[in-house]
Amino acid sequence: MLVVKKFGGSSVATPEKIKAVAERVIRETNPEDKVVVVVSAMGDTTDDLLQLAGAISSNRSAREMDMLLATGEQVSIALLAMAFQAKGRDAVSLTGPQAGIQTSDTFSKASILDICPARVEEELAKGRIVVVAGFQGRTRNNDITTLGRGGSDTTAVALAGALKADVCEIFTDVDGVYTADPRVVSKARRMKEITYNEMLEMARLGAVVMQPRSVEMGKRYGVPIHVRSTFSNEPGTIIREEYTMEEKEFIIRGVAQDNNVAKIAVLGVPDQPGIAYKIFSALAAEHIDVDMIVQSIRSSEQNIIDMVFTVAKTELDHVKRIMDQVGKDIGVMGIVTDESVAKVSAVGAGMLGNPGIAAEMFGALADAGINIEVISTSEISISCLVQQDRAKDAVNAIHQRFFKEA
Amino acid sequence: MLVVKKFGGSSVATPEKIKAVAERVIRETNPEDKVVVVVSAMGDTTDDLLQLAGAISSNRSAREMDMLLATGEQVSIALLAMAFQAKGRDAVSLTGPQAGIQTSDTFSKASILDICPARVEEELAKGRIVVVAGFQGRTRNNDITTLGRGGSDTTAVALAGALKADVCEIFTDVDGVYTADPRVVSKARRMKEITYNEMLEMARLGAVVMQPRSVEMGKRYGVPIHVRSTFSNEPGTIIREEYTMEEKEFIIRGVAQDNNVAKIAVLGVPDQPGIAYKIFSALAAEHIDVDMIVQSIRSSEQNIIDMVFTVAKTELDHVKRIMDQVGKDIGVMGIVTDESVAKVSAVGAGMLGNPGIAAEMFGALADAGINIEVISTSEISISCLVQQDRAKDAVNAIHQRFFKEA
Repeated sequence: MLVVKKFGGSSVATPEKIKAVAERVIRETNPEDKVVVVVSAMGDTTDDLLQLAGAISSNRSAREMDMLLATGEQVSIALLAMAFQAKGRDAVSLTGPQAGIQTSDTFSKASILDICPARVEEELAKGRIVVVAGFQGRTRNNDITTLGRGGSDTTAVALAGALKADVCEIFTDVDGVYTADPRVVSKARRMKEITYNEMLEMARLGAVVMQPRSVEMGKRYGVPIHVRSTFSNEPGTIIREEYTMEEKEFIIRGVAQDNNVAKIAVLGVPDQPGIAYKIFSALAAEHIDVDMIVQSIRSSEQNIIDMVFTVAKTELDHVKRIMDQVGKDIGVMGIVTDESVAKVSAVGAGMLGNPGIAAEMFGALADAGINIEVISTSEISISCLVQQDRAKDAVNAIHQRFFKEA
Repeated sequence: MLVVKKFGGSSVATPEKIKAVAERVIRETNPEDKVVVVVSAMGDTTDDLLQLAGAISSNRSAREMDMLLATGEQVSIALLAMAFQAKGRDAVSLTGPQAGIQTSDTFSKASILDICPARVEEELAKGRIVVVAGFQGRTRNNDITTLGRGGSDTTAVALAGALKADVCEIFTDVDGVYTADPRVVSKARRMKEITYNEMLEMARLGAVVMQPRSVEMGKRYGVPIHVRSTFSNEPGTIIREEYTMEEKEFIIRGVAQDNNVAKIAVLGVPDQPGIAYKIFSALAAEHIDVDMIVQSIRSSEQNIIDMVFTVAKTELDHVKRIMDQVGKDIGVMGIVTDESVAKVSAVGAGMLGNPGIAAEMFGALADAGINIEVISTSEISISCLVQQDRAKDAVNAIHQRFFKEA
């Protein structure tokens, strides 16, 4: 069995926690297993390094920031390798560059281009536990890069793919993927399994357990990703291509909520060809991701329409400035924004062959007296925009409708 | 002009000091100069990392310690490169491995085997200031190593040699090489120049300005080493093959003192062939460096001799254990040790052609009423073992005799 295990920064925040990680890895594996452990920087290390850099300059080159930040994981891999050795296990640490993680040269948010795992395989063949620095790699020119947000997960899954590992275990502060956020829905259940596509859709729609990049990586290389808790021995959730267990019977796999949403209504838009293109190309030129889009006829006599769309709330000020200009150019009656909205979504590959799912979901919201402002659908999800103060009720109503047993 | 400048840990201990180093380098060089800056880890970083490692295990593998400690310089090179950039100069940082420092695989005290400076030359050709991590390199197997004590000086001098630099400037907390320790001899003068051989002899005999390794490296590659103060603009001392200035007239270049000396007297040794071999091969087998050796005939009737030698005081306990055994094996009358001694030495290439120097030195000590316990000479030095409580007087007496002008 070849397994890649990834532990995040909070799991290795102190020497004591590092020792606990070593103990757990030894306890959960057999001596004949081949084991790779990917770790992030210790707890606050990155913040400390950012503070040092801030004391030098406010305008830092991304290359030098990566050179600086990459030391964080290098410290934790060395300490974890020592912890394994102190418990009598042969272990060796490798930086991202040493482990053959080859990346693009977009410093601070590099993508993994290729993995040359020769050194890792060589060390595994010697019976060593191989401790690899997450979050980092090297360019063709031998410069050190970091992978940006969620980078250590990506390292772990990509390495598991290159090594043809049996499973990539991601240890995190939650004990798996739930049918809804347990803080919102008290009866939310942990899923035993979920498909890559469903997990990606859940992540896109607001569930923050895993970064989409690493799930995509797992899908591409066919690596099962096992999401587990660092702090408990619960069985967790396995993300894979297809279900192997009884979970097939559930048409809906989860209910997600995303509060980082703002609604923009463009009122009284002349109903002419090319108007939608003008609006959305102006936004695209400024790299704004537009999510839900609804176009409605306001009045057949006046030949004008309303256009409603949503963007990330964090982008709203930027979008307002763009839309003020676009609105003047094309001549609209008004632009109204609303930040007090949230998007609730039901996700499940099973809805493909079940046409009644959307109706069920709308019915659940209607029964709870919740108004739906915008609707959008994908192949495996249905999303409704609701007022944010009703979002929790909405998630609970949908969850109750689809997970009656729970 | 191509110059390599090296700053130690105390020179880069804080972000403010790092900014000051950047300012000084910019002030002291012309924009058309090619500049390489070698730096050590920031002030206490190494101690902090050692403490972390100590919390994991007391028995750490040297490879993992090197992986851990090498992060110290990686932090300082990134910050110094940022500091240059903040002042409008193009700069790039390179780790030891990136700079092509190839070493043996004796972790924690690796030797530099070769330098492949292609990347450094490429960056210099782009007009960039190249900031290189001292103290570290990589093995043929791409493992990270550290060079051990004085390693950053060695990196700087070796790199200067490989780049055929005009000079290697070592910035340190003293402002040059003195004719004697200024804390001991108030009239000690700073030398403008000293030869590699004299500097090596001074270092061997107790002057701690430069580690011998880096002076040897400078000698091998013919790189002038300029020892300067980080904290002042004094002209410092240039270490090179031959004098270029008026300093030729001084026969003696410096007076050194070494307190890390212990004397061992082996009394009543049978005067037979092979006895000296037995004693010193037993010490060599345990890697003990023996310094001064004197053999004296005690009594022609009894056919026994005394053997006196010195070792580093830090090795004395180990030496006592070895000598107790050896003494039994060969049958000696007694072994007496003395830790309260010091070695004072006069160094100067000029003494080669001046036979009266030793007599002058003994005369100076006699005039001061200081007893000489052991004498040893090399081509360019004369050393006397004296009681440690008279060492300061001895150094002053010798200095005054040879530097009358001062």
